[in-house]
Amino acid sequence: MSESDEIRRMVTDLATKAKAASRVLARLDPARKNAVLLRVADALRGEAKVGILVANEKDVAAAIADGMASAMLDRLRLTPQRLDGVADAVAQIARLDDPVGNVAGLRTLDSGLTVGRMTIPLGVIGIIYESRPNVTADAAALCLKSGNATILRGGKEAFRSNQALARVFGEALEAEGLPTAAVTLLPTTDRAATTVLIGLDRLVDLIIPRGGESLIRFVVDHARVPVIQHYKGVCHVYVDEDADLDQALAIALNSKVQRPGVCNAMETLLVDRGCAAEFVPRAFAALRGAGVTVRGDAAVQELADGCEAAKDEDWDAEYLDLILSMAVVEGLDGAIAHIARHGSQHTEAIVTTNYDKARRFIREVDASLVLANASTRFNDGGELGLGAEIGISTTKLHAYGPMGLNELCAEKWVAYGSGHTRA
Amino acid sequence: MSESDEIRRMVTDLATKAKAASRVLARLDPARKNAVLLRVADALRGEAKVGILVANEKDVAAAIADGMASAMLDRLRLTPQRLDGVADAVAQIARLDDPVGNVAGLRTLDSGLTVGRMTIPLGVIGIIYESRPNVTADAAALCLKSGNATILRGGKEAFRSNQALARVFGEALEAEGLPTAAVTLLPTTDRAATTVLIGLDRLVDLIIPRGGESLIRFVVDHARVPVIQHYKGVCHVYVDEDADLDQALAIALNSKVQRPGVCNAMETLLVDRGCAAEFVPRAFAALRGAGVTVRGDAAVQELADGCEAAKDEDWDAEYLDLILSMAVVEGLDGAIAHIARHGSQHTEAIVTTNYDKARRFIREVDASLVLANASTRFNDGGELGLGAEIGISTTKLHAYGPMGLNELCAEKWVAYGSGHTRA
Repeated sequence: MSESDEIRRMVTDLATKAKAASRVLARLDPARKNAVLLRVADALRGEAKVGILVANEKDVAAAIADGMASAMLDRLRLTPQRLDGVADAVAQIARLDDPVGNVAGLRTLDSGLTVGRMTIPLGVIGIIYESRPNVTADAAALCLKSGNATILRGGKEAFRSNQALARVFGEALEAEGLPTAAVTLLPTTDRAATTVLIGLDRLVDLIIPRGGESLIRFVVDHARVPVIQHYKGVCHVYVDEDADLDQALAIALNSKVQRPGVCNAMETLLVDRGCAAEFVPRAFAALRGAGVTVRGDAAVQELADGCEAAKDEDWDAEYLDLILSMAVVEGLDGAIAHIARHGSQHTEAIVTTNYDKARRFIREVDASLVLANASTRFNDGGELGLGAEIGISTTKLHAYGPMGLNELCAEKWVAYGSGHTRA
Repeated sequence: MSESDEIRRMVTDLATKAKAASRVLARLDPARKNAVLLRVADALRGEAKVGILVANEKDVAAAIADGMASAMLDRLRLTPQRLDGVADAVAQIARLDDPVGNVAGLRTLDSGLTVGRMTIPLGVIGIIYESRPNVTADAAALCLKSGNATILRGGKEAFRSNQALARVFGEALEAEGLPTAAVTLLPTTDRAATTVLIGLDRLVDLIIPRGGESLIRFVVDHARVPVIQHYKGVCHVYVDEDADLDQALAIALNSKVQRPGVCNAMETLLVDRGCAAEFVPRAFAALRGAGVTVRGDAAVQELADGCEAAKDEDWDAEYLDLILSMAVVEGLDGAIAHIARHGSQHTEAIVTTNYDKARRFIREVDASLVLANASTRFNDGGELGLGAEIGISTTKLHAYGPMGLNELCAEKWVAYGSGHTRA
């Protein structure tokens, strides 16, 4: 048997066991699932803590030896406090409402048949992610709570940390008499194993890649299993001529500087020509005061003394940093056209006091969240009331925006009759 | 330029135009979309009728010359009455509620931000289908009503008919001043063109294949665009020991014989051992009386004099004909296990008067529709109150069961603030 046959057999075998485990999870009462999660949270705060930190230290040491950049190292590192945070997150997921078995729209049709839609788990969810080991616990906990089995393929750099974290789930499942295959970490980070996993469309129900654009592109290009992805967040704030400019400034600053390294941070500020002369200099000064480097188009440069020039590629850039592109546009239509061309269907905001323009922007802009008079930073599961999320989808199908517990479920139709037949 | 480059360029060009048209459709008021549909319905009943029938006659003549089987020929043939039926279906779609721009779950969170989810079109939907030309009009009308552009790839046999039908949509769009690319029929049925189409994941938002298993398999294997598919309907009725046996008999007969050639017809009847001695002979006689050939397992054969023996492959067969497999199972658990192994996640029914068993069956069986005490034939957009459907999905993601207008939409988040920033 060749090596690639061996990898195929190994991954297929793990996925088969995960599928069987998913059938057990799908039938569980909420209390059983929550018991597993609370055991995990307890272990993360207690008996498993040292083992995880030691495993993580080895990962960090290896990463340092490999010359990993310090920002990446910081994402990889688990501290006792961070591990407590992971435990808290798992315990919080246990406290959320159970998403399975809820029926919506139950109604009795003319035939007398009573029909509705019941939430059900998806089955087996494959999560493919990069360095942050906390994703291991978050993803496993969210999938378990929603009755799904998980197959995790974490980053090479975090392999020991992920193994230690996954072991905690295995032990908690076992202690509750449940199949440990419900949370499966692939025992290799070999790309060949990933390729097999994302091809198993009869065993795996959904793949969620989390990471850089090249990882996501690889998954989309090679998957037969449905993929829900998020390429990048090129988010805009459009300041309309009819905006309250104080409000606009506060929203622009919050969208850019409150946490610049995340996908829902603003990358481009669009200013209506009608208020540019007043707003651009104010915004430029305030942003510069907050440490932001602004790259403007010709109109912005004219109004903002000392502003760098934006290049063509700036309009499509996701800086994830204290850098911002800024352009003057011709009113609402100019803003909508700019966003349609350069946006990434993530988060888009308008600031205006004009009712009709707010209504048009909300309706016409295609993004997973469209806001009027609020910061782009609100595109987050917690802020939108979902409790917890596994990522933000910019795929329209099934889930567009933050994916919480409900988005990890599907809906089947249910029908209650009393001997109904079709005429 | 090679032939395959030419095909790639041609399909990409059509999809680019369809994408641009989809942006126009997404913003249309319901009245504009309905005006197009009513023009189409009028033309199908009037000026376009003869041209379509002549084109269809040519298709039928060519199919006869090619030796097409009579059942297939019947599906290909359009008569004046059938064309009136197509026109009625389009007019009925115009009368349905508009699915776009509806907001669900609008609520104000602790932050004061008011958030909800708004229905939006998916964008560009590719429909790949086989011989029936009425799919051309149905699919185009449903997509248009839901604000989506359509790219249609019909069967080779119906090419002239499909061209004539698509032209009616083009003329109606043009008369309303809308881009004709909103309904695009591929000008070739070459498989290379289909392969290009299903790979255009930046231009096409969803592919729906309708047809035989090999067509669907081809699409799933080669698509980068998300696919919602329906492989087959191996639907079961489980008659529980606690069933009202008269009701069970009526449901079994209706599920099998009311229209045996469709995907929601029953293919396997499962009988609880506790009522087998009484029910199997009655069901066998009634089914045989209705012209059904029954293939039974050993237990059924013992109870039903003259019953054929089922082979292993019968339990996975979609007969689409007056043939039925029948097995005796060990109660509810036996039925659920049989369905988990052989079902196709399409439609599953239990007949019982026992509350707990009905509840367990409804919860635990994984299918797009699960019924208690009703015929499998109810898995249909019309019967479930959707008005019209584009097919029945056995893909759990996004839509599971009949796909009506709402299932051709996605949901984006919308948020209304008054200067909200994140702390």
